[in-house]
Amino acid sequence: MSNAEIRVAVLGASGRMGSEAVKAIQDAPDMELVAAQGRGDQLSEILSAGATHVVDLTVPESTEANVRFAVEHGLHAVVGTTGWDTERLQALEQLLAEHGSVGVLIAPNFALGSVLATAFAAKAAQYFDSAEIIELHHPKKVDAPSGTAVRTAELMGQARDAADVGPSPDATETALDGARGAEVAGIHVHSVRLRGLVAHQEVLLGSTGEQLSIRHDSFDRVSFMPGVLLGLRTVGSRPGLTHGLDGYLDLGL
Amino acid sequence: MSNAEIRVAVLGASGRMGSEAVKAIQDAPDMELVAAQGRGDQLSEILSAGATHVVDLTVPESTEANVRFAVEHGLHAVVGTTGWDTERLQALEQLLAEHGSVGVLIAPNFALGSVLATAFAAKAAQYFDSAEIIELHHPKKVDAPSGTAVRTAELMGQARDAADVGPSPDATETALDGARGAEVAGIHVHSVRLRGLVAHQEVLLGSTGEQLSIRHDSFDRVSFMPGVLLGLRTVGSRPGLTHGLDGYLDLGL
Amino acid sequence: MSNAEIRVAVLGASGRMGSEAVKAIQDAPDMELVAAQGRGDQLSEILSAGATHVVDLTVPESTEANVRFAVEHGLHAVVGTTGWDTERLQALEQLLAEHGSVGVLIAPNFALGSVLATAFAAKAAQYFDSAEIIELHHPKKVDAPSGTAVRTAELMGQARDAADVGPSPDATETALDGARGAEVAGIHVHSVRLRGLVAHQEVLLGSTGEQLSIRHDSFDRVSFMPGVLLGLRTVGSRPGLTHGLDGYLDLGL
Amino acid sequence: MSNAEIRVAVLGASGRMGSEAVKAIQDAPDMELVAAQGRGDQLSEILSAGATHVVDLTVPESTEANVRFAVEHGLHAVVGTTGWDTERLQALEQLLAEHGSVGVLIAPNFALGSVLATAFAAKAAQYFDSAEIIELHHPKKVDAPSGTAVRTAELMGQARDAADVGPSPDATETALDGARGAEVAGIHVHSVRLRGLVAHQEVLLGSTGEQLSIRHDSFDRVSFMPGVLLGLRTVGSRPGLTHGLDGYLDLGL
Repeated sequence: MSNAEIRVAVLGASGRMGSEAVKAIQDAPDMELVAAQGRGDQLSEILSAGATHVVDLTVPESTEANVRFAVEHGLHAVVGTTGWDTERLQALEQLLAEHGSVGVLIAPNFALGSVLATAFAAKAAQYFDSAEIIELHHPKKVDAPSGTAVRTAELMGQARDAADVGPSPDATETALDGARGAEVAGIHVHSVRLRGLVAHQEVLLGSTGEQLSIRHDSFDRVSFMPGVLLGLRTVGSRPGLTHGLDGYLDLGL
Repeated sequence: MSNAEIRVAVLGASGRMGSEAVKAIQDAPDMELVAAQGRGDQLSEILSAGATHVVDLTVPESTEANVRFAVEHGLHAVVGTTGWDTERLQALEQLLAEHGSVGVLIAPNFALGSVLATAFAAKAAQYFDSAEIIELHHPKKVDAPSGTAVRTAELMGQARDAADVGPSPDATETALDGARGAEVAGIHVHSVRLRGLVAHQEVLLGSTGEQLSIRHDSFDRVSFMPGVLLGLRTVGSRPGLTHGLDGYLDLGL
Repeated sequence: MSNAEIRVAVLGASGRMGSEAVKAIQDAPDMELVAAQGRGDQLSEILSAGATHVVDLTVPESTEANVRFAVEHGLHAVVGTTGWDTERLQALEQLLAEHGSVGVLIAPNFALGSVLATAFAAKAAQYFDSAEIIELHHPKKVDAPSGTAVRTAELMGQARDAADVGPSPDATETALDGARGAEVAGIHVHSVRLRGLVAHQEVLLGSTGEQLSIRHDSFDRVSFMPGVLLGLRTVGSRPGLTHGLDGYLDLGL
Repeated sequence: MSNAEIRVAVLGASGRMGSEAVKAIQDAPDMELVAAQGRGDQLSEILSAGATHVVDLTVPESTEANVRFAVEHGLHAVVGTTGWDTERLQALEQLLAEHGSVGVLIAPNFALGSVLATAFAAKAAQYFDSAEIIELHHPKKVDAPSGTAVRTAELMGQARDAADVGPSPDATETALDGARGAEVAGIHVHSVRLRGLVAHQEVLLGSTGEQLSIRHDSFDRVSFMPGVLLGLRTVGSRPGLTHGLDGYLDLGL
């Protein structure tokens, strides 16, 4: 057993995200990978391996039990699995109240650049007359707009409402069906699907004589790993539940 | 009377485009402005002024009579006015057949960059799996998509059909209404309306591992003037009717 | 005399910025323009006109005396004139200490989008391996890089130093002179000069698999006016000296 | 032996490009892969395998002998290997004169989008006052600017010279060293190096009131494969030597 303070067990280690996480943790000089579990492995083994932290990248059916197990045994948890509805979150918060020193991060998005882009867009939205979003993805994506674009639009819309900014000006009288995009929280959102692309989003903000554009390009799944490592390095000093990686960023927004 | 070979009469000289044309011609060292006519002026005066060329930037109601007058008196004409339907164009071609040395250019768009961007997009469209268009304009525009975007999509669609390129791949199963834009000739077109912008268009072409983007930004109406001057310098050596400024560009690659 | 609470005297009203400010204040429903002074006018007249606020858009030689006059007479001041070195700023702070209720904003840049872009770039810089800046301006600009780009690079460099981020990776061994741009605070800065452009800046931040781009386009001088109005609406509730419009933005950064 | 008309032998099949080519040819419905040779294999075996075409993706030391062997045995060749100087090209043309029906394509760049972008940039360059290039690559690249950017600048510069376009306007008086980039054939070229990027290039063209931007993004080496397949499908009908994939593209606008 080494002296690394962050001794990590990866759950869901054979999945696409999980296998990247295994590599990233092995390469991190301040961490040690002590367990890499897949379907069928026994959770108790991560205790005998001396884990201090858990990364959960499994499936919605397993994640709740995994995280409960971690909290009950005093392990901090970084969770990228979806499926955490309000009921589950409330139950987790109750459990955490009984284990005051344990921290859990549940993050729907670990790409630092994407998290920053969304935070900046939400902050800037109140200062411009017009706001629209273009998201661009590979053509195998089945939904439009992307979840990130919907979330960004909602946050921007809330900020504009709170600051009493009126709707974006728009004199369109005649339009082909769909030309002006989908409307989410008062923000027009356009979804491009193009072979060669991965996952990209551009927020456009305009006022008389000026434009502010905030764009994030995700070229590869490995872009999530710096966020996972940041989560692991921070979660031990943030007892209780944190929802969203932005809670760990020095954004003061 | 100077020795300039290109002696220009501007019709519609007090309109927005016309007044810019007057300035541009006055600044061109190889041209002379010999007449600047508005509503109510007599066309015969441009003959006594010694005009060799006419620029028509009037209104659909006047343009046909103006151009006929020019052709009948041996003047070359550069025409930016809309309203030239098939019937008018055929009548003009008959008239030009009787005046073999006269040239007429009818151009819906004088922005060189825009004309080039459309030509390049049409040419490249057959070589990529995916093709979409984003056009961005000021929020006072009443139609969506822009006429230029529709025309670009039509030319791209024709080129893809001719080369037997299938439709752009798109696995979208669930979409908010409008998210995927309007479809024109098989090309998805997205219309952004943003305060601060003027007239912009971006064509996106993608295949596995690569993207080609062709973008034109029009910041100001003066961007049409180099195209008007190019038209005036070329029309005298191109007898008959030319439709579209691209007919004068050295695009043979 | 109307009931508007913000009764503004514009100093330097015949300059390029000043004349835009006059129009913007006249159009603002919650303000009244009570004086528009040029060279040679008597400052005392702004008192008899009932001014509560002063906008100084004059020249470095006049601005200090103008602002002192305003402060001594209890008027809040929004200042866009350059020339405020450390000595002047210290003297002004002393004067403001004697007039506890008066607010002064000195802002080198009133474009909200530009101020936001710089703040976001400085905040994000610590989270990425690589950082570079491209600034693009009209070809009549005499200096390169732009002052805004230098300022942005300095703030980004400070943030990266404070977070112990190493230099951007760069394996360049052979380069044409100038290819890699100028280096400011460890950030490579590239200056494009292109006819048709006005003032634009793009900050590029990259890590493995992702890129964050923050771009500001200034198309027209009128883009400064929302910032001037925001300054006028805020300065009365912010006694003392504020340096930079970002001090009034809800950035919490 | 199948009935496919294009029966391909890949030379250099174990290299990075070669192994991608093997996969692409296996996936192409109109081709058959009949040989995949690495170092030490006997060229004579591609004859017994019934090859009609050769793809050479080897090294500068081998490529000339490989191509000579192909031509002498009546096989068409698509060549991506570098090292073809003037002397080698002349010797090859002599050999091809003796084998009138054989076609050879030597292409320094197989990315269709990149080839198109360069061709469009060269064509458009004469129509704008200003022209600059920004190329962006991963930070492990050892040279700056990229070879593609230098080649693009040279072609643009030649086109501008031929059309008697003067130099891009530039009033810069004071600049930090390197700020204005490197100058190649009168075109300013800026090289960005950013973690997360692969290979990207943007050509900016500007005139009063407008900008044309042509951007190519190469995200992955597989982007070269459509160009290799296009070469294989075309080379048999183009006897003699063709230099550059643009020679096979239908660019006549």
